[in-house]
Amino acid sequence: MLRKIFIANRGEIAVRIIRACAEMGIRSVAIYSEADRFALHIKKADESYCIGSEPMACYLNIHALVDLALATGCDAVHPGYGFLSENAKFARACKERGLIFIGPNADVIHRMGDKTEARNAMKAAGIPVTPGSDGNLQSVEEALEFAAQIGYPVMLKATSGGGGRGIRRCDNADELKRNYVRVISEATKAFGSANVFLEKCIVNPKHIEVQILADHHGNVIHLYERDCSIQRRNQKLIEIAPSPQLDEAQRQYIGGLAVIAAKSVGYTNAGTVEFLLDDSGRFYFMEMNTRVQVEHTITETITGVDIVEEQIRVAAGLPLRFKQEEIVRRGYAIQFRINAEDPKNNFLPSFGRISRYYAPGGPGVRTDTAIYTGYEIPPFYDSMVAKVIVSALTWEDVIKRGERTLRDMGLFGIKTTIPYYLKILKHPQFRTARFNTGFVEQNPSLINYSDKPRPEVLASVIAAALASHTGL
Amino acid sequence: MLRKIFIANRGEIAVRIIRACAEMGIRSVAIYSEADRFALHIKKADESYCIGSEPMACYLNIHALVDLALATGCDAVHPGYGFLSENAKFARACKERGLIFIGPNADVIHRMGDKTEARNAMKAAGIPVTPGSDGNLQSVEEALEFAAQIGYPVMLKATSGGGGRGIRRCDNADELKRNYVRVISEATKAFGSANVFLEKCIVNPKHIEVQILADHHGNVIHLYERDCSIQRRNQKLIEIAPSPQLDEAQRQYIGGLAVIAAKSVGYTNAGTVEFLLDDSGRFYFMEMNTRVQVEHTITETITGVDIVEEQIRVAAGLPLRFKQEEIVRRGYAIQFRINAEDPKNNFLPSFGRISRYYAPGGPGVRTDTAIYTGYEIPPFYDSMVAKVIVSALTWEDVIKRGERTLRDMGLFGIKTTIPYYLKILKHPQFRTARFNTGFVEQNPSLINYSDKPRPEVLASVIAAALASHTGL
Repeated sequence: MLRKIFIANRGEIAVRIIRACAEMGIRSVAIYSEADRFALHIKKADESYCIGSEPMACYLNIHALVDLALATGCDAVHPGYGFLSENAKFARACKERGLIFIGPNADVIHRMGDKTEARNAMKAAGIPVTPGSDGNLQSVEEALEFAAQIGYPVMLKATSGGGGRGIRRCDNADELKRNYVRVISEATKAFGSANVFLEKCIVNPKHIEVQILADHHGNVIHLYERDCSIQRRNQKLIEIAPSPQLDEAQRQYIGGLAVIAAKSVGYTNAGTVEFLLDDSGRFYFMEMNTRVQVEHTITETITGVDIVEEQIRVAAGLPLRFKQEEIVRRGYAIQFRINAEDPKNNFLPSFGRISRYYAPGGPGVRTDTAIYTGYEIPPFYDSMVAKVIVSALTWEDVIKRGERTLRDMGLFGIKTTIPYYLKILKHPQFRTARFNTGFVEQNPSLINYSDKPRPEVLASVIAAALASHTGL
Repeated sequence: MLRKIFIANRGEIAVRIIRACAEMGIRSVAIYSEADRFALHIKKADESYCIGSEPMACYLNIHALVDLALATGCDAVHPGYGFLSENAKFARACKERGLIFIGPNADVIHRMGDKTEARNAMKAAGIPVTPGSDGNLQSVEEALEFAAQIGYPVMLKATSGGGGRGIRRCDNADELKRNYVRVISEATKAFGSANVFLEKCIVNPKHIEVQILADHHGNVIHLYERDCSIQRRNQKLIEIAPSPQLDEAQRQYIGGLAVIAAKSVGYTNAGTVEFLLDDSGRFYFMEMNTRVQVEHTITETITGVDIVEEQIRVAAGLPLRFKQEEIVRRGYAIQFRINAEDPKNNFLPSFGRISRYYAPGGPGVRTDTAIYTGYEIPPFYDSMVAKVIVSALTWEDVIKRGERTLRDMGLFGIKTTIPYYLKILKHPQFRTARFNTGFVEQNPSLINYSDKPRPEVLASVIAAALASHTGL
């Protein structure tokens, strides 16, 4: 088993990995930028090191991080999500310097990170893909010709894109011309690659993704699917496991497809195969994420499997602890990404000091967060400040639990997406489980909520503040 | 369905009930003593009312509480645990004034609360009971005679006792003589009844209890058992579901017995049938608790059933939502009762101001508590300030999760039982699941821990305090 893990990340996912290490008796090393000096992951880790003053760049400095991992005596590196988690160079640098990278091998990361390569690999394995250019486009003329062939709308995508960036929908030739320049520019800046390709746009599909686990002994299993259709501008807001929009036959079919997909590319460790589901019930491969995902929590909740622990075990060379038939689902889980944003103000980030934070509790509630009362959210990072996961045996009950829990959570000093989510939970389309990725856009009135705290909440905050100052 | 529930309790169980109400769309009414004016249950309820200045007496004033429940327009009363929860007069007063009492009917409460009556009822139903005086003792002479007959050690018990009070072990005639006077005095003060009886003392048994649910339509099911053998002076400290000390045959047997027991007395609502398990594998009925128990949480965790919601549904006349075969267990859950006590100082209560509280989080963690940063624990009530519940698929994993979670929890300003529980989790007897109610007494060295915070924890508390004051 591994002895000491270097966590090349920050915030809640660093805390999540530290918790897995603590349970497994593995020492954890945290890193932090100067801006992150009051971050919770520093406090939870066994050791922590400041890696510099540039808020973003220091978390992306491959060689400095590998040097520090070695200098601190680590035998493995967990990249979390975001940052270097899907960077094949980082995975390769770790391996070359004798560190175990907790993820698939660098070649698989590279291959799945290249959207056209991934697409071709899946096509070869018999996985359904959307009609598209089976390779990078050489020019805007080629793009226009191809789009005319498969018909608008089309999606123009950066080959190295991910996380909802480097992707544009084009409804006609003019839009395609304009976006061609934009996406290339974005992709060059964000991913260091100008390659783009085209796919038929599946209009307002459902986003269904399957969690898989694969070890180095040829075992590949899936942990069922998640429904991440509640998105805003390709950013997931609310995720659900399993999808309340699939029947059992679809569930088994898509799980099986994901296992075939993973096997076909020699995948190891945890990963996610993302599919689009169109109105006629057809699934199309979208992409494979070669990291632990933000929403792995809901899969853990319905199956009881600790995905981060399995990642670490697999990286250490151990076989998976579960056979497919031992994975038993129970009920539903929903994750709410609590973002420090003001939905009423076009979801503008709302960073600042958290004057009071009360975690929600009680039955069927899990929180993963790195905030605390008095914490100042640095403006440099992702606006997600907490993940609230609720679970219950039925779809109806998990919605009610979600409403209760979001109200139960006390988060003062910043604007958040909580009241927006409460509106979503009230929406008939959500409650009857008939929604797709167009839901947020189609329902602009979701921002019509009152964000004044209830008088009794206000009174209690004042009372608590008084009590805390006077010692009453 | 009920519209508005009066919660005749305080603290974490009041919060627990409020959460169930919130999920069910039922309004909640909280009550509080003046000493409890900063308590969290006030803040969580839809309405709350101060019921007086006497810290304990006001929560026990049957007629004042019934009056207030009616005056506030409630249609039902939830008594929680402790206080009036097993008071047949209270249940009767509610019913007579048109309020639904959320619990079994007053006659069943009375009958099960009278230990000799309960014992006789169980004996008649074919449930194994310990050898004992099948009725109240009339004199110390009768007690001595009976003890000589069944052999020492014997347990002298107050007929109306409960919660570990009004009960003494007697190893010989001298002790029996001394304790006879003491128990009668205690019982008169605590329970208003001088009746006592004798039972054979099962030396260091395991404490195994079964959660049952029963509706008004003749349906009775069990939700498997809990192992509450980790006790100190008959007060439960750590509870586990299911018991890691039972095999599947024992589990089915004891579950079936509990259902027979409940049916035999016409039981309705949630209840617990407590058994002792001796070294030879024999179970003996101990008592039936006619309320929701502190440790109902771990049963909720392994089955996914919301016991408080079922209590409310049953009280409203609805049938149980589950058949026995639909109750599916998953993994293990452990509850730690976090008490504001100093184990090193003979578990002396350690009330005071909570300077900082950070809830634990991550996979498999539930917290039920009514504390928050700045909260001053009033000295008048039970010392339990939080319940931490952890779950995992295996016994080995749930222990590791327990260790991680207790360290993860940040609770400053008072002494707690957390470091003591960390010692228990390290103990080979606990880890190999071979323990009984003698465990705590047999292991006095469990108090040998260092209770100085780790330097990094201390540093982080200081940093957080600074950040919170300077706005850094």
